[in-house]
Amino acid sequence: MAVYTEVDDQELDAFVHQYDIGEVVACKGIAEGVENTNYLLQTTQGQYILTIYEKRVDPNDLPFFLGLLDHLSARGIPCPPPIHGLDGEALRHVTGKPAALHTFLQGIWPRRPRPAHCGELGRALAAMHLAGQDYKQARPNALGIRGLHNLVETTVDRADEVAPDLALEIVNELKTLEDRWPKDLPAGVIHADLFPDNVFFMGEKLSGLIDFYFACNDFFAYDLGICLNAWCFESNGEFNITKARRLLQSYHAVRPVTAEEIDMLPLFARASAFRFLMTRLYDWLNQVEGALVKPKNPLEYLHKLRFHRRVKGPGAYGLDRS
Amino acid sequence: MAVYTEVDDQELDAFVHQYDIGEVVACKGIAEGVENTNYLLQTTQGQYILTIYEKRVDPNDLPFFLGLLDHLSARGIPCPPPIHGLDGEALRHVTGKPAALHTFLQGIWPRRPRPAHCGELGRALAAMHLAGQDYKQARPNALGIRGLHNLVETTVDRADEVAPDLALEIVNELKTLEDRWPKDLPAGVIHADLFPDNVFFMGEKLSGLIDFYFACNDFFAYDLGICLNAWCFESNGEFNITKARRLLQSYHAVRPVTAEEIDMLPLFARASAFRFLMTRLYDWLNQVEGALVKPKNPLEYLHKLRFHRRVKGPGAYGLDRS
Repeated sequence: MAVYTEVDDQELDAFVHQYDIGEVVACKGIAEGVENTNYLLQTTQGQYILTIYEKRVDPNDLPFFLGLLDHLSARGIPCPPPIHGLDGEALRHVTGKPAALHTFLQGIWPRRPRPAHCGELGRALAAMHLAGQDYKQARPNALGIRGLHNLVETTVDRADEVAPDLALEIVNELKTLEDRWPKDLPAGVIHADLFPDNVFFMGEKLSGLIDFYFACNDFFAYDLGICLNAWCFESNGEFNITKARRLLQSYHAVRPVTAEEIDMLPLFARASAFRFLMTRLYDWLNQVEGALVKPKNPLEYLHKLRFHRRVKGPGAYGLDRS
Repeated sequence: MAVYTEVDDQELDAFVHQYDIGEVVACKGIAEGVENTNYLLQTTQGQYILTIYEKRVDPNDLPFFLGLLDHLSARGIPCPPPIHGLDGEALRHVTGKPAALHTFLQGIWPRRPRPAHCGELGRALAAMHLAGQDYKQARPNALGIRGLHNLVETTVDRADEVAPDLALEIVNELKTLEDRWPKDLPAGVIHADLFPDNVFFMGEKLSGLIDFYFACNDFFAYDLGICLNAWCFESNGEFNITKARRLLQSYHAVRPVTAEEIDMLPLFARASAFRFLMTRLYDWLNQVEGALVKPKNPLEYLHKLRFHRRVKGPGAYGLDRS
C-alpha cells in the first residue's frame, strides 16, 4: 500500500519509449500491493500497470514469474501478461531497479467476498492449476514445509511477546505438520497468495488473477488451504462453510480432487494458516522503523489455525470423500 | 499516500448509480494525497477520481471547495470540477463519509521541476488568482497570520525537542511577521498548497491544478511565497534563482504584481516557509501511533525560513521593483 520508488517524467518517457505503446498521458501510484511499487500508467494507446520490483522480490525469480504470466495468459487464464518491449524483452529497469509493464485488467477486488465470488474463484484456481502443468520453469516453494521450519527457528525465541505460550504452540504445530506432510499428491504451479485483493471481478464474474510473486511448485492442495483461509472466514472470525463448499465444489468441477487430497484438506488448511501466522509473526517481530507498510496482526491467523486444528475432517469444509 | 476507507463493490455500485456515468469497470486506490482517500474510478463512460473526505477536512468547507472548482473550471482554469449527480448535487456520501466524484485530469506531476515547469506554474497561478476574483463564497485562511499564532502557542513548549533553541526562534519569527504583516495588498482566493504533486504536466505544458483543500481568501503574495518555497529549492537545499525568476516573471505577465507586493515578497516567502515549518512541527510532535502517513521533517522548512530571513530584498527572487 505504498509507492517506494518515484519515477520522474524524463525517466518515465525513456522507459515508455522502449515499448510500442505510444506516449505517456498519466501515471498514478497505486495504493495496493505490499511487495512492489505499482503505477497505473496511461498512454495514448491504452492502460498498463508499471511494476517496480523492490527488495522483497529476488530478481533471479523474475523470469519465472513473467514467463508464467505469458504461459497462463496464452492458455486463457485471465492474468496480466507482461508487455514485451521493442527488443522482445519483458524485464527491464527503471531508476536502477527491475521493472516490467503489464496489461491492465478490468474489475475490482471484493472487499466482502460472497459465496458467488468463492465459486468463481474455485473454477479459476483449478483452471490455473491445469494450465500451469506444462510450464517449463520451476521454482521451489520458499514457504513450503522447509521454509516454515526456518521461520519457526528465527522467531521462536521472541514468539511469546505476541501471545502467551505461542512459542510452544508453533513448535508443536510445526512438528505435527512435518510428521503428517504427504510425500506425494497432485502438484504443479500454485499461486500461493490468492487473497481477495489479488482477484478482480466485474459484478460477480471473475475478470482477473494478479500478483503471482509467490507462485511456485507445490501441492495443489496448498493453494486450496490458502484460499479457505483467505476467503471463507468472516471478519468476526467465524468460518463460513457455505463459501468453502462453493469454493471446493467449483474447483472440483474443473479439476477433480483426489480422495487423498480431500483427506489432506484439514492438514493443508492448517499448514497455510501456519504459513501466514509465521510470516506475519516474523514481520511483527522485525518491524522496520519508518516503514511505509504496517505489519498485519499475526493473531488473526493463530485464530484460524486453531479452528482448523479442531475440525473433525474434510466435511468441515463442505467437501466429503464420496 | 494511503487509502483510509475501503468501499465494497455493492456500495460502489450504489454510489455510481447516483450519476449518469455508466457502470464500474475498475477502481484503484491512489497512493497520493495526504488528507483524503482517492480512488481512480473507471466506468464504461470514462475515468473519474472518487475522493472520500477524511477527518482533516471540515465538511462545512466542502461547498466552498467544490463550488470553487466549478467556478474556476467554468473560467478555463484546468482543475477537476466535481461531477454533479442525477439530483444535481456534487457532494454526497460513501460509507458514511462525505465524498465527491471529480473529472480525471491527464498529466503527471514533476518529481524534479525544471525552469520551464516554473514558468507554466506562474502563468497558471496568476490566471487562477484572476479567475477567482468574482467567486461569491469566502473562506478565511486557517493558516494565515492568526492561525500561525495559535500553532506557535501549541508547539512552543516542545519545539526544542526538534532542534536546539527552536522555541525561541519561532517566537521571534512570529513576532517579526506580525509586526510587518501588511494591512492591504491585492487579495482573493489563493490555492495555499500548490506543491509540485498538485500540478500536472503533459511534457512541459501544464495540464491541471488539483487539491484545493487549503484554498481560502488571503493575499495573492502568500501563494507566491508558497510556490517559491515548494518549487525553487533544489533537493540539496540550494535556492535556484533561475526557477524563481521564471515563476515570478511568468506570473507578472498575466497578473502584474504591484510595487508593494514585490517589496513584500521576502516577507511572504518567510511567512509561507514558517507556515510549513509550523504545521510539520505540529504533526511531528503529535504523531499518531499506527498512522498510515509518516510526518514530514520540519527541518527542511527551518532551513528555507533561514534562507529567506537572510535575503537582502526581492531581487534575491529574480523580480526587482522596476
